[in-house]
Amino acid sequence: MRIVVLAGGIGGARFLRGLKQAAQDADVTVIGNTGDDIHLFGLKVCPDLDTVMYTLGGGINEEQGWGRSDETFHLKEELAAYGVGPDWFGLGDRDFATHIVRTQMLGAGFPLSAVTEALCDRWQPGVRLIPMTDDRVETHVAVELDGERKAIHFQEYWVRLRASVPAQAVVPVGAEQAKPAPGVLEAIGEADVILFPPSNPVVSVGTILAVPGIREAIADAGVPVVGLSPIVGDAPVRGMADKVLAAVGVESTAAAVAEHYGSGLLDGWLVDTVDAASVERVEAAGIRCRAVPLMMTDVDAAARMAGEALTLAEEVRTA
Amino acid sequence: MRIVVLAGGIGGARFLRGLKQAAQDADVTVIGNTGDDIHLFGLKVCPDLDTVMYTLGGGINEEQGWGRSDETFHLKEELAAYGVGPDWFGLGDRDFATHIVRTQMLGAGFPLSAVTEALCDRWQPGVRLIPMTDDRVETHVAVELDGERKAIHFQEYWVRLRASVPAQAVVPVGAEQAKPAPGVLEAIGEADVILFPPSNPVVSVGTILAVPGIREAIADAGVPVVGLSPIVGDAPVRGMADKVLAAVGVESTAAAVAEHYGSGLLDGWLVDTVDAASVERVEAAGIRCRAVPLMMTDVDAAARMAGEALTLAEEVRTA
Repeated sequence: MRIVVLAGGIGGARFLRGLKQAAQDADVTVIGNTGDDIHLFGLKVCPDLDTVMYTLGGGINEEQGWGRSDETFHLKEELAAYGVGPDWFGLGDRDFATHIVRTQMLGAGFPLSAVTEALCDRWQPGVRLIPMTDDRVETHVAVELDGERKAIHFQEYWVRLRASVPAQAVVPVGAEQAKPAPGVLEAIGEADVILFPPSNPVVSVGTILAVPGIREAIADAGVPVVGLSPIVGDAPVRGMADKVLAAVGVESTAAAVAEHYGSGLLDGWLVDTVDAASVERVEAAGIRCRAVPLMMTDVDAAARMAGEALTLAEEVRTA
Repeated sequence: MRIVVLAGGIGGARFLRGLKQAAQDADVTVIGNTGDDIHLFGLKVCPDLDTVMYTLGGGINEEQGWGRSDETFHLKEELAAYGVGPDWFGLGDRDFATHIVRTQMLGAGFPLSAVTEALCDRWQPGVRLIPMTDDRVETHVAVELDGERKAIHFQEYWVRLRASVPAQAVVPVGAEQAKPAPGVLEAIGEADVILFPPSNPVVSVGTILAVPGIREAIADAGVPVVGLSPIVGDAPVRGMADKVLAAVGVESTAAAVAEHYGSGLLDGWLVDTVDAASVERVEAAGIRCRAVPLMMTDVDAAARMAGEALTLAEEVRTA
């Protein structure tokens, strides 16, 4: 079975770890979000790709969900001592190596997809990880700060400001001109199932879908497309998805997110058992829906969620 | 009193720490060797400038004489795990920050002299540290490896090979086209005393003197020029100076090094007490010479050496 997954960071990575356990013989291709990539200290940092790579490759800091295990922050401390910023982005000493290797390879002319493949040679994530695009896409968030309207980098909004001010708009700058990375459309075209993990529907999955050709390829793939709600009981399971959902006019409920994707894209949708009441509304929107436990408390729980998603996909296929 | 010092790495840095103690009111300008600078992982590394800066600024690893105190090597370990080299150059996590800041500033268009000044704003070395040039000079060493004659970077010869094969030639590539950095010739022109610490006469002091204009400015300065022998009892005090002295046809003795600099450049020369017998030979070459203890076992010993050098300079001045 060939499975394509559109993944953001922590939620996507943890779901994928469950999926690998639930479908051990499956051939999994992950299309990773690069909209929250950022240049720091002259280095290209790809937080979502790295979170997937580290999580599946056994190098993740389990507690925080991002960054490396057994990490130190000496380099960052020294940069601060030099007065060189920004200081709000948590780059660890081990993590820096990934960004240095990536930046060196990009500088040598390799596209990000080839660089990602090379990095994965070490981590052996057990999936094929492809960035959504080799082109530069950078998610900006429009906010009002000190009475002025500004567009700031998504990481500045998310990490520095902790989404503490309303997002007035979320714009994946460069997405319109971007092309899917080599292998993205092919993987979608050959997939048996396409999954949207409980990643952020705006700044993770939404950014991937904003790359021209990807949404269309998924809609036209003719295979079940099943998603899992990142909202449980009207609140994001983790992160601050509600902040960016508000920016695109979507209420922070499991049903509203399904409707936001729409029946033209989504065939099946899993909501948490606490949101069982919304199943009817989702199905009324033409999307098959089931209520199952959606809290990824551990790998087994994530595996059960992945299993439910595949079961729902099978229901869609044979319906 | 305005003192100009031509410095390499460890020997120069430790001598300077002694000089600061011996001449606390002096205005010291250090002209630093950049011939052993190297690009690693896309970063500009200036080992000699950093050794001076860290040593005088209190950040040096005292035992090894280079690199940072309280250092870790996680980034380097990770680069090796990615299979990215070279692995023989000891870049620590804290040290990396210096190279990142430097590389960023160079990339922004600042010359190395301005970058060095900015880095010293943090370290407050208590001297004015100027690279010998803002231009790229790279010391290469001609060696025979596996039956083939090759020119390799000085660091590869020194650090990777530990000078284990004979150096057939030492070439400061780019020196002929280099210009002294801003402030270098002015500092020499305004100096009351010019000192050559017990740094390597070929790859440290020699490289600085290879930048057109510097040797001439020192010879024409009309002030005492006093050096300290890096060779004690026919062997280098530290490092492998004998290997590169052989490449330029100079025997590894305190007297031969003085003759190598020559009376056209050098007015005074300090040899160690074990080399007292060579005083006569040095003086026969027209260079005033004294035998004093030259082992920098601690800061006080280095300060006594610096004091002896200043005393000899005064003798030269009043002779």
